Formats: sequence, structure tokens, C-alpha cells
Amino acid sequence: MKATLIHGPGDIRVERVPDPELRASTDAIVRVTHSCICGSDLWPYRGIDLSSGDEGPKRIGHEFLGVVEETGSEVNSPRPGDVVVAPFTFSDGDCVFCREGLPTSCVNGGGWGADGVDGAQGEAVRVPWAEGTLVTLPADGDDELNASLLTLSDVFSTGHHAAVSASVGLGSTVLVIGDGAVGLSGVLAADRLGAEQVIIMGRHPRRTELARRFGATEVVAERGPEGVERVRELTGGQGASSVLECVGTAESLATAVDAVRAGGAIGRVGAPVYENIPQPGRTFLKNVTISGGVAPARHYIPKLLPDVLEGRIRPGQVFDRTLGLDEIAEGYRAMHEREALKVLVRP
Amino acid sequence: MKATLIHGPGDIRVERVPDPELRASTDAIVRVTHSCICGSDLWPYRGIDLSSGDEGPKRIGHEFLGVVEETGSEVNSPRPGDVVVAPFTFSDGDCVFCREGLPTSCVNGGGWGADGVDGAQGEAVRVPWAEGTLVTLPADGDDELNASLLTLSDVFSTGHHAAVSASVGLGSTVLVIGDGAVGLSGVLAADRLGAEQVIIMGRHPRRTELARRFGATEVVAERGPEGVERVRELTGGQGASSVLECVGTAESLATAVDAVRAGGAIGRVGAPVYENIPQPGRTFLKNVTISGGVAPARHYIPKLLPDVLEGRIRPGQVFDRTLGLDEIAEGYRAMHEREALKVLVRP
Repeated sequence: MKATLIHGPGDIRVERVPDPELRASTDAIVRVTHSCICGSDLWPYRGIDLSSGDEGPKRIGHEFLGVVEETGSEVNSPRPGDVVVAPFTFSDGDCVFCREGLPTSCVNGGGWGADGVDGAQGEAVRVPWAEGTLVTLPADGDDELNASLLTLSDVFSTGHHAAVSASVGLGSTVLVIGDGAVGLSGVLAADRLGAEQVIIMGRHPRRTELARRFGATEVVAERGPEGVERVRELTGGQGASSVLECVGTAESLATAVDAVRAGGAIGRVGAPVYENIPQPGRTFLKNVTISGGVAPARHYIPKLLPDVLEGRIRPGQVFDRTLGLDEIAEGYRAMHEREALKVLVRP
Repeated sequence: MKATLIHGPGDIRVERVPDPELRASTDAIVRVTHSCICGSDLWPYRGIDLSSGDEGPKRIGHEFLGVVEETGSEVNSPRPGDVVVAPFTFSDGDCVFCREGLPTSCVNGGGWGADGVDGAQGEAVRVPWAEGTLVTLPADGDDELNASLLTLSDVFSTGHHAAVSASVGLGSTVLVIGDGAVGLSGVLAADRLGAEQVIIMGRHPRRTELARRFGATEVVAERGPEGVERVRELTGGQGASSVLECVGTAESLATAVDAVRAGGAIGRVGAPVYENIPQPGRTFLKNVTISGGVAPARHYIPKLLPDVLEGRIRPGQVFDRTLGLDEIAEGYRAMHEREALKVLVRP
């Protein structure tokens, strides 16, 4: 089959790889119908490898919808022919962490594309722990619905995790840092959870326009101290009770710490490239909670699915380009240059 | 009147200062009957000044019980003659933060001993915002009860805040880092909140013995990586779901980060002398929440008071020495040298 490999910074290639085969009785083989490129895929593309690992070409991609082709003997559900969505990590569904709703810490879990596991940007994927990992979907989705269902894999689940981690609820005052697809998903998630005020920091018109459609009440174009000052003005001088940190740089984290209200919470979902969390004295005096991390998408998908299926939210609007698998390198380039917000890939 | 001043590292003196007088209609004058020395008072004693401020002698102390002598015209309660406990910060009781339960961020609040406000280690204190700040107590407490009531000022409220911030609840697995009076209070607070397992790190026999009386189920004498390894062994390999960080050094915080379970929470109450929070990638991958800060004692006192008054908890056992005001320098010395756990002062 064909699959995407990253050979080095800026070097994305679609190549022939062995067809996936069942290895364990808990595996399934899924034919990928929809995949996409994540902001975190751009880190290695830019030469920043957050994973420890060997040199050399690597399979990449961790978000997909597809159709089950084959299942191991212990997989009762899904069945061959079922349409499924996969979260961006696999998990057995049965360990102590999975049962607590933290499948990202599954004792048998792992990520796509590493250690003999297929990446999602390819024609098919062997899914370990298929029964614990995959969520079965209705089979009759149109393109728009499928795009929204695909966001449950990662980007919308991650925006939701940012909002949950930042304790967003009815009447919350929310600041979203980051106008990428995760930040925009955070806006939609905060609105869905009942936030009263949702401020997004961003200056790219197409993105801030989508933010407003997703529920943003204000857009702050300024950055750094000026941006923080503007957020304070918009929040009665006190800052935002919930800050969604959807970037992962030292600068964005510093903005989060400066802009959060006393007693408030920061939900971190941007994969951290910072080395530490600054100003521990300031967050201590203000009783700020710092939470978040890798989104437990598998835990959230069943909760978010009804709103997507019934059209109450349309998180798939973050996709602004669709490409075939053979064109995927162009998708990376377009996202890297911020020409595209998020690229959907149809193998 | 007489009051304690710190002239510099190791230099504690009791001197004559002006008697306090009402300055605002919301003030009260309280005759101090019980005060004490806090671990945080030892920072300037050791030459580490966490406050920004002028050079020169400073009033010190921030925990007290006393009897109201005089009140301003706007103070309806307490009344002269009432026995009261003061939290370690004063607050108006009416601002947006006070109403939300975060009096430490009161827009009119502040701390004892700074900016023309009396310290608590003296014969009397002018209390700003007396109605918002003070909590009236029954007048008939004996020495043991009064010692426990005094802990509501700071040390037990702070231990409680560590436990609340670390999400301790029924069945929790708790690690307490620090065998000082705050750590021991954290043990008692965690036990009170229903924790199933409470591990304390410490090696001082008198302290760990009190920890066991307060509800500790295990004592870990090892420190650093060996201590973390021991905590893992005691928690099924996963670490503690709730970690109470009751020291405030880089080492203790690193231990907290290493010993917390995936999906768990760290409650920070040790005044931070560290410069940042390390390993943001590790806490991100594990979805660890970092919370806590300056304890909103005024918010907690009414909740904790019934258990103290009715004898269900006896947090005053942290006091192992009582001195007169004139002997307070000896109290500092004894605490600094870890000869005394916590010193009660009777002006």
C-alpha cells in the first residue's frame, strides 16, 4: 500500500510500504478513507522532533476515519464493514487508566506511526486493541459530516480538553491563545460548554472570522504584553478565568500566565516546546491552576459524537483544503506557510 | 505595646512600638492572646526575603487569636469582648474575589506586618476590614482547643488547601511532601477528606509519629529518586493521585512531579523559592494538574471550625512548645534548628 513517510525536515514522501496484517487477536485492519495533517506533524517537518527515536524515515499521521476490513478473533466490535473513527492514541479500553477516562495513559497504549505501528496518513492502518480504540459511526456521512467526525480524532477533542482542563462552564470568561485549528476548536468547545465571553488572540482574518462563527465574542490582534493588557481591559481588569493554551511555545505560555485571573485555570494542550512553566510565585499568589495535557480523545468521542451527528456543532469547518494522498507534501507546505489552516487528506 | 521585629537574618527582637489605634471605620483593635511562628517566618530569619520591600526592621507574624478591644463605627460584628481568630491575610469580605471564596486576592486585602499594618507577634493588632476578616469564636476555649483554633489562622487551613488543591477525596492515594507543621496539617486534612492512603515523606521520628496520629498510613524516609521509587512501590507502581507539596523548594517540587500519578494533581502550598515548574512535557504527557497557592484561610475557617470545636480533629498538636512574647527569639532559633516543630507564643 501507499503511506506517508517523513525523511527529514521539509521532506515528506508517499511511498510503497508493506500492507498491514493482523498480528494480535485484538487487532483490526482499517482502510483509511479520511486522514489529515496536524499542527504537531509540522514540528518534525520544521526539524523539531519532540519524540525520542531513531534517525531515518518515519511513518506519520495520527488522525483517521475508515472502514474496518478485518478483525482479530477477540474483537467483537467493530465488525468488518463498519465505519470507524480512531483517536490519536490507541488504548486497550480496559486498564485502570482507560476505566478512569485517561486512555492516553493506557498501560498497553501507544501512538500511531511509531514502533511498528502504522501512521494514519496512508491507505490502511493496523489498529492495536481495536475494541478499546475504535468508535463505530453511522455509515452514511456526507463530506461535511465526515470532516466533522474526523476532528474527533484529535483536533476538536483536543480543543475540548483545553476547555475542560481550564474549567470552562456556564458563564465562564475564556481566553484562547492560538488561532490554529486547535485554538479555533477550543473556541467552539468553550462556546458549547456555556462560556459567556470567549476572547481569541489572533490576527489572521480567515481564522478570526471562523473563530467568530465558532462563538468568539472578541478578537485580540495584539500579542505579548499589549495583548495581555487588551485582555485585561475586556475582562474588567482581572484577566480571563479560563485560559486555553493552544500553541505550546514559551511565549504563548507566558501570555497565559500573565492573562489568567486569580483563581483561574490554564488548560494546556499545545505540545510543549518550552522547558519549564515560568513565574511559579505569581501563579502561587493568584492560586492559578495549570492543567491539561495530551487529550484523552477516546474518552471524549462518545460524549461529543451526538452533537456532531445531530449537527449542533460543525467542527469540520477547520478544514480549508482537501488533497489526495499523493499530494500530501503540498498540504504540509501549505500548513507550514500558514496558507492552509488544516488539510484533509483522502487516500 | 510590645511587638516582635526582625532586624535582619537571625536577629529577632521584642521592642516597644506605638499602640495600635483605629484608623478607618472598618477597623478593629484586637488584643492578641495567642500567636505563633510560621515556617514562612523562617525565610527572612534565614536571610531569604520573599517580599519585595525596604531594608530595616520589620514587624512580623501573621497568625493570631485574640479579644476584640475596640471597633470602628461600621463594624457590626465582631463586638468588643468577642474572642476571634484572624486568617493570615485580611480581606473586605465583599469584593468579587471574597464572594468567590478567594479572599487572598481581595481587592482591598493585604498581609500582616507590612505597609503600616501590625504584625501578629505582638500584644495587639489593628485589623483592617474587621468584619470581613475576623471570625468570632466561643469564649470558653481551654489551652488545647485554643491551640487548635489558632491553626485555622494559617497552618491547618494551608494543609487543607493543599489537600483541596490536590483534589483529595474519598479513597484518594495521597503523598505529602514535607514533615513540617504544614505537611503534618496536610496529612490531617487529607485524612479528614476521606483519603484511603496517606504517605508522608519524612525521617524525624517525633514528626512522623504525629503524622501517624494524624492519619498517615505509611512513612517514607528516603528522599529524591529513592523516595519516589518507594512511593511508586507503595502505590501499585503508578504514583500518588494527590501530591501535597508543603515545602516550596526546587527539590520538593521535583519530587512532586516525579511521584504524581498520571491524571493526578499536585497541590502547592509551600511558598515557592523555586524559579520555575520543571518537566512541563512530563506533566503534559501524564495530564497532571498543578494547583494550589496562598491558602484562602478566611474562606476555609467556617468550614473547618465545627470539626475543631467538636473535637473531631485536633490540629493544635503541631505545637510542641509555648513561649512568652519576650522569649520569641528562642522560638525562632528552636524552629530554625528543627528542635521545635511549631512554637506557640503567648503575649
